[in-house]
Amino acid sequence: MAKSPEEEHPQKVFGWAARDSSGVLSPFHFSRRQVLFLPSELYHDRENGDDDVTVKVQYCGVCHSDLHTVKNDWGFTRYPVVPGHEIVGVVTKTGKNVNKFKVGDRVGIGVLVGSCKTCESCQQDLENYCPRMIFTYNARYHDGTRTYGGYSDMMIVEERYVLRFPDKLPSDAGAPLLCAGITIYSPMKYYGMTEPGKHLGVSGLGGLGHVAVKFGKAFGLKVTVISTSPRKEEEAIDKLGADSFLVSSDPAKMKAAMGTMDYIIDTVSAVHPLAPLLGLLKLNGKLIMLGLPEKPLELPIFPLVFGRKLVGGSDVGGMKETQEMLDFCAEHGITADIELIRMEEINTAMERLAKSDVRYRFVIDMANSVSQ
Amino acid sequence: MAKSPEEEHPQKVFGWAARDSSGVLSPFHFSRRQVLFLPSELYHDRENGDDDVTVKVQYCGVCHSDLHTVKNDWGFTRYPVVPGHEIVGVVTKTGKNVNKFKVGDRVGIGVLVGSCKTCESCQQDLENYCPRMIFTYNARYHDGTRTYGGYSDMMIVEERYVLRFPDKLPSDAGAPLLCAGITIYSPMKYYGMTEPGKHLGVSGLGGLGHVAVKFGKAFGLKVTVISTSPRKEEEAIDKLGADSFLVSSDPAKMKAAMGTMDYIIDTVSAVHPLAPLLGLLKLNGKLIMLGLPEKPLELPIFPLVFGRKLVGGSDVGGMKETQEMLDFCAEHGITADIELIRMEEINTAMERLAKSDVRYRFVIDMANSVSQ
Repeated sequence: MAKSPEEEHPQKVFGWAARDSSGVLSPFHFSRRQVLFLPSELYHDRENGDDDVTVKVQYCGVCHSDLHTVKNDWGFTRYPVVPGHEIVGVVTKTGKNVNKFKVGDRVGIGVLVGSCKTCESCQQDLENYCPRMIFTYNARYHDGTRTYGGYSDMMIVEERYVLRFPDKLPSDAGAPLLCAGITIYSPMKYYGMTEPGKHLGVSGLGGLGHVAVKFGKAFGLKVTVISTSPRKEEEAIDKLGADSFLVSSDPAKMKAAMGTMDYIIDTVSAVHPLAPLLGLLKLNGKLIMLGLPEKPLELPIFPLVFGRKLVGGSDVGGMKETQEMLDFCAEHGITADIELIRMEEINTAMERLAKSDVRYRFVIDMANSVSQ
Repeated sequence: MAKSPEEEHPQKVFGWAARDSSGVLSPFHFSRRQVLFLPSELYHDRENGDDDVTVKVQYCGVCHSDLHTVKNDWGFTRYPVVPGHEIVGVVTKTGKNVNKFKVGDRVGIGVLVGSCKTCESCQQDLENYCPRMIFTYNARYHDGTRTYGGYSDMMIVEERYVLRFPDKLPSDAGAPLLCAGITIYSPMKYYGMTEPGKHLGVSGLGGLGHVAVKFGKAFGLKVTVISTSPRKEEEAIDKLGADSFLVSSDPAKMKAAMGTMDYIIDTVSAVHPLAPLLGLLKLNGKLIMLGLPEKPLELPIFPLVFGRKLVGGSDVGGMKETQEMLDFCAEHGITADIELIRMEEINTAMERLAKSDVRYRFVIDMANSVSQ
């Protein structure tokens, strides 16, 4: 018989889990693999503890993926699920092979905690695209045991998948960079969207979008926020530093803005038309999709052909690029705008997140709220 | 009152035109602007004849766009329309400013015969994306008079839009390169699809597709033809030089080929699903759309995000790149596979083209068929 989550591994952990598609989270006792003291043959490959870093979780961002997962919106949630993949904490123990980190170091853990290390993607520092990539939660390690995320008091993660958290970055407002930040930074680099003076449109002003505005400005771009909500204009410009604001539901303004943008980052997850966004792009314009609409979107081909435009996608980034992104953020003073909550407030926060009622990311103050 | 097509300009021309959306072509007398002898103030800007080259048409390819236009499939045909934009001929007269060509030179004329020359696109040798670009037929010059294409005995075209036709290229089988050739070559260069050893899928084996196979091989790629017709396999491999053939209606074979291709050139104009093609692509794969489906296609976003794939488009090429393409074809022995017809056979040819019953491009032998 399979062992219970609490008995599976030697290291006891306390967190909050959703048990079904109501998505309601509640306290949950489980276990993680032990660092150091277990014989390596108990673990597959190099997941044997000698390369592991134990982290006391201090802060964990609440990503929209957490909400999708607890509600089983994508249809592949395995309950109980402990979400959280924007994790900042302090190293409390290291395996004997660990040399990047020492006890007391501040570190980050993002969307993935494992990969095969041998495939083409892994060898190119693109662990995020490895076919055997292991998500931080709602996934399985190669030995078949479950992964649980950062809504918990501690994490045990192999050194390769742990990030140095730069001194200049605050732990709370920096935590969302581990998912939202790299989700924006990686496509901007890959698709060549960093040329100073170019015009970036940011569609959707939520957790991803507000960070996209900040990266755009850091790269020296002109940034226009594209949103259905006119009431967000003042904040987008005054607080986030956008250069202009475009109400997507205003046909006259959309028409006037046609052919003015070099790049658009589309963070909207709902099903929505692409034609208006493609129309905003100049020749050679790039529309990058970061949301995950449940259904296919309608793609008109004429603008692609006659404007040599492209529609691309991207999914977080590899470990090396994520570290580069954190260092870039430290250098340019980029953090998320957050609302700090305690773990006990998570269900209310999830309800508000579902209504996009957050400016712009909830972060759980784990150290001051989790207790058994 | 507006002048008739025959009286509008001083130079009498004979061609074949469609008069209505039946698309049936029949003999048509019209006129073109005169070279050399007209005062320049009769013409807008530099379209005054001094920069013009007069060309006796020898061969003209029958592009799928010709068929769409005579049938008014795209809704913007103005009748009478004289199609044809894959034109090879001999220079018979030159304006006084012309210095690239002399009488007797073999030249090519492609999809466009004019542009604004001042916009960002024109200045980057991308006249094909100029907002005031003038199509070779079914368009208007800046002075408002109509353009008529290469299904005619002579063309008068400004020097900038005339191409040197390399000695090594045959006039008949080389003519289709002026549209089909550049339509393939330009995106392969722009999207970086020329890395030797990479795997190119070519979806649809018609006028564009069969040329794509040849360019793919010339660039040193592995080429797989993706087609609904199993009967095309032998020819694709034995005659065109493809490395393999994939029947898109065979689910088992499509599944086995998933994640194996670096690039796909999609030449299919009919409405069709993109998901199977995106599935064939590897990480970072590129799907380039060259056909023009009348309706939007369904675009699933998950493969774009999780495979960092992109869907792009492209429309012919600028004059500089078109010349580069012709020279590349001369060097690598690339021509179209053609069926030579006389002008009088055009209506039968159009019927066959509508059924994709041509291997792979009709070319009209104009010099031996057009007469008044």
